[in-house]
Amino acid sequence: MSTTSTFTTESEIQNFGGKLVKLSHQSEKTKTKMDVNLYLPEQYYKKDPSSVKLPVLLYLSGLTCTPNNASEKAFWQPYCNEYGFAMILPDTSPRGANIEGEDESYDFGSGAGFYVDATEPKWSKNYNMYSYILDELLPNLSKDFTKLDFNNISITGHSMGGYGALMMYFKNPSKFKSVSAFSPISNPSNCKWGEKCFGGYLGTQDKSKWLTYDPTELIKTYNGPKVPILIHTGKADPFYYRDLQLLPENFLKASEESILKGLVDSRLVDGYDHSYFFISSFTKDHAAHHAKYLGLSSKL
Amino acid sequence: MSTTSTFTTESEIQNFGGKLVKLSHQSEKTKTKMDVNLYLPEQYYKKDPSSVKLPVLLYLSGLTCTPNNASEKAFWQPYCNEYGFAMILPDTSPRGANIEGEDESYDFGSGAGFYVDATEPKWSKNYNMYSYILDELLPNLSKDFTKLDFNNISITGHSMGGYGALMMYFKNPSKFKSVSAFSPISNPSNCKWGEKCFGGYLGTQDKSKWLTYDPTELIKTYNGPKVPILIHTGKADPFYYRDLQLLPENFLKASEESILKGLVDSRLVDGYDHSYFFISSFTKDHAAHHAKYLGLSSKL
Repeated sequence: MSTTSTFTTESEIQNFGGKLVKLSHQSEKTKTKMDVNLYLPEQYYKKDPSSVKLPVLLYLSGLTCTPNNASEKAFWQPYCNEYGFAMILPDTSPRGANIEGEDESYDFGSGAGFYVDATEPKWSKNYNMYSYILDELLPNLSKDFTKLDFNNISITGHSMGGYGALMMYFKNPSKFKSVSAFSPISNPSNCKWGEKCFGGYLGTQDKSKWLTYDPTELIKTYNGPKVPILIHTGKADPFYYRDLQLLPENFLKASEESILKGLVDSRLVDGYDHSYFFISSFTKDHAAHHAKYLGLSSKL
Repeated sequence: MSTTSTFTTESEIQNFGGKLVKLSHQSEKTKTKMDVNLYLPEQYYKKDPSSVKLPVLLYLSGLTCTPNNASEKAFWQPYCNEYGFAMILPDTSPRGANIEGEDESYDFGSGAGFYVDATEPKWSKNYNMYSYILDELLPNLSKDFTKLDFNNISITGHSMGGYGALMMYFKNPSKFKSVSAFSPISNPSNCKWGEKCFGGYLGTQDKSKWLTYDPTELIKTYNGPKVPILIHTGKADPFYYRDLQLLPENFLKASEESILKGLVDSRLVDGYDHSYFFISSFTKDHAAHHAKYLGLSSKL
């Protein structure tokens, strides 16, 4: 194990010409040890340190996931190498915060931080994934990995992480060059997953707090760059057609009344479910989407 | 769940334009229920049933694996679609045979059938992975999936499965169009994994039985088609450099005294380990290798 000023390198795994680097660090925002995976493409190791810096894609995972699931199953790595961008895969919540009930549900607590800063006293000491990622993780990675260009960064994610990607993009205009999402929870104020997490972390008294994190609300007042947004949702995903957890139609409708009218490419794809088999089938398209706005071209 | 004459379809998962089909069947050779995964590329669903039949690649997994590990992590699917071949992923042993001690080791018994037909009485009723795959699984799949061409089939695998692929290829000249392997156990008679499995399934009295399954022995008398063989082994794989379980040098040396002299392309690759991160980094090369001998060209 090696150590930077902030991170401990738990392992480095050669993969697709680059390396998957598994890091951990003690977080001030969550008061826990946090794991994060970083994929550095072959260009990272070949380029002269004084030359071009590599763009970054931030990937937010869904409910129950650690940084490892997408690292093993989403198959971003060949496309990181094709275009030459690094990938950051944070965890989905604090772990081992020792809060009563934190491990009881798959969709609340551990593995389900919902990318918000909790205001409910029981959770607010640790469950601050929004400021953890934006104000702690990214700045510290930027300090330690100086060959990466954190001013040239895009964001994507799956399910809870798809919601997180859209939400962080709209709340921080111009911070990210582009956003995309795989089966995002598009209107969390109006579905069970969102109600449970918003209610638990933000309280049920003042639901206006919920709306400050809801992509379908945020897009209405978004006033940043007019960059197209790519979204895939599987038509055979039971969280879509049966449980109405995803509601991409609500988001698309809201976009039509926003400055992004006509720029949301929301694709409902036949036969696909909610799994990594779905994600991996479309990472190629999402990589190409982000590469365009990160100023990258395919080496193939 | 649907049923063919032999197989029950446990699930069908849309993936990369094709489908991953998870099948199960009651095996006569193992006297257990066996799982098998089949990946059918998009060409399978688009082609006129009366037209061209699709070639097949048989993938044999390593110790501890079920058919699911490689289906989720090896990343063959985009290349199945690129060239238009189906993939078969059998299990690595009988499961639940109710033999005393079958679940005690990771490298013997469940998950470690070693692709032999056991002769030791304790194991010989169930542990017949060699004849299970060649005489039962493939013929039954051929009967039920008539759009696949089982006369145009190649074979590959990882670790124990890499050994299995080489062994089955040499024991059945002309049955497979080509063979390749990822970190194969190349000379099992001379390493601990092989000694444990050969000893347990075939006995320790007559070691000449072991040699009938050992690729480094079999290549010496192989007299089939002279087709190049592609092998990758990671130099940072502790099973290679530390434990001497793989011994690719022994196999390469034996090949120099065989009719395949000069045709074994055994690549030791810097930095790579034994994991699926290693396998997935080179499936593209192996797919291209097999496509050539299956008579396929890239659609890209």
